[in-house]
Amino acid sequence: MNCNYLAFEGIDGSGKTTFIDEISLKLTKLSTDFKIVREPGGSKLSEGIRELLLSHEYKVDPTAESLLFSASRAQLIEEIVKPSIESGQVVITDRSAYSSVAYQGVGRGLGYQKVYDLNDFAIGSYWPEKVVLLDIDPEISLSRQKVADRIGSDEVSFFKKVREGYLQLAQDFNSKFLVIDAEDSQQNNFRVVSEWLGLEES
Amino acid sequence: MNCNYLAFEGIDGSGKTTFIDEISLKLTKLSTDFKIVREPGGSKLSEGIRELLLSHEYKVDPTAESLLFSASRAQLIEEIVKPSIESGQVVITDRSAYSSVAYQGVGRGLGYQKVYDLNDFAIGSYWPEKVVLLDIDPEISLSRQKVADRIGSDEVSFFKKVREGYLQLAQDFNSKFLVIDAEDSQQNNFRVVSEWLGLEES
Repeated sequence: MNCNYLAFEGIDGSGKTTFIDEISLKLTKLSTDFKIVREPGGSKLSEGIRELLLSHEYKVDPTAESLLFSASRAQLIEEIVKPSIESGQVVITDRSAYSSVAYQGVGRGLGYQKVYDLNDFAIGSYWPEKVVLLDIDPEISLSRQKVADRIGSDEVSFFKKVREGYLQLAQDFNSKFLVIDAEDSQQNNFRVVSEWLGLEES
Repeated sequence: MNCNYLAFEGIDGSGKTTFIDEISLKLTKLSTDFKIVREPGGSKLSEGIRELLLSHEYKVDPTAESLLFSASRAQLIEEIVKPSIESGQVVITDRSAYSSVAYQGVGRGLGYQKVYDLNDFAIGSYWPEKVVLLDIDPEISLSRQKVADRIGSDEVSFFKKVREGYLQLAQDFNSKFLVIDAEDSQQNNFRVVSEWLGLEES
């Protein structure tokens, strides 16, 4: 695999989990040492923060929300991602700092650059090396979702803005982003991603 | 009282609580409508974050710590401070964003300006209007403390840096800071603070 820190990004229901499962199978076949993490969560503190974020018990202001996501991420990176990469493992993350830029920066309107800078404070040089963006029309992705949590139950217009945020990121960081049409055939998409990542079976 | 949003700052054991109690008595006598908040905490979400911060159960990286304090603060300000001030109440806060600059920015070495900017993102224009800084030698303040929580149990050298951070803030924002020698007589200090705040009994 031609990178050590890979993120899967996309709005809820874009199929990240299925993709990560397939990549895991492939990496196992190739005897690549890898670790999968998910955001928000992945360390003990981060799981505590995840609970606060997903609980219906709390009112969460968008600015506080973006700070909680960043806190969770800072801890995950310091405690899990950094040591894993340093020990030679490949880290695959289900969401990353780019989610915050798209969701809070653009979706919630806190500002693309402001949330980018906030995350730069949180993670320093630990932005993912490569990003697979599963792009999909929110009307379709929302219909795919089964569980409606606090974040997922927002409306189509919000996710349309998030999608715009993602596409802006893909444009601004085009050398590290691969944009995939998540409505295309899964098999074909997986082949394209595998090629891009240099995943050829020996 | 000549301001609507007042913070008491100082290292642990500098006597903020006693001062806030005295101010409360005075404001009650003057029939001033006021509210006291404390950081971290003060709203439901913020109390949840406070628990994460003070629990010994979690490893907390300094960057994650500063982000959690900011998240707690953003929620407290949006939910409690802003509406209180808008409704005409005076808000008195036990710690504020300036604590983060001194503790995480200087004490933990994350950077004075970086943590200032982070808090500017978190609270926007809601920096306290006036700040009473209770300045004290950490060797003395530590000996005053009874409970050693995760934050309070750090050593003298850490609190010396925090104190430097506070004094730098007082210099950079001298028009809004009043620096009090916390080892002077309580009675005299309270008189000085009362005068500075325009608290004269009618």
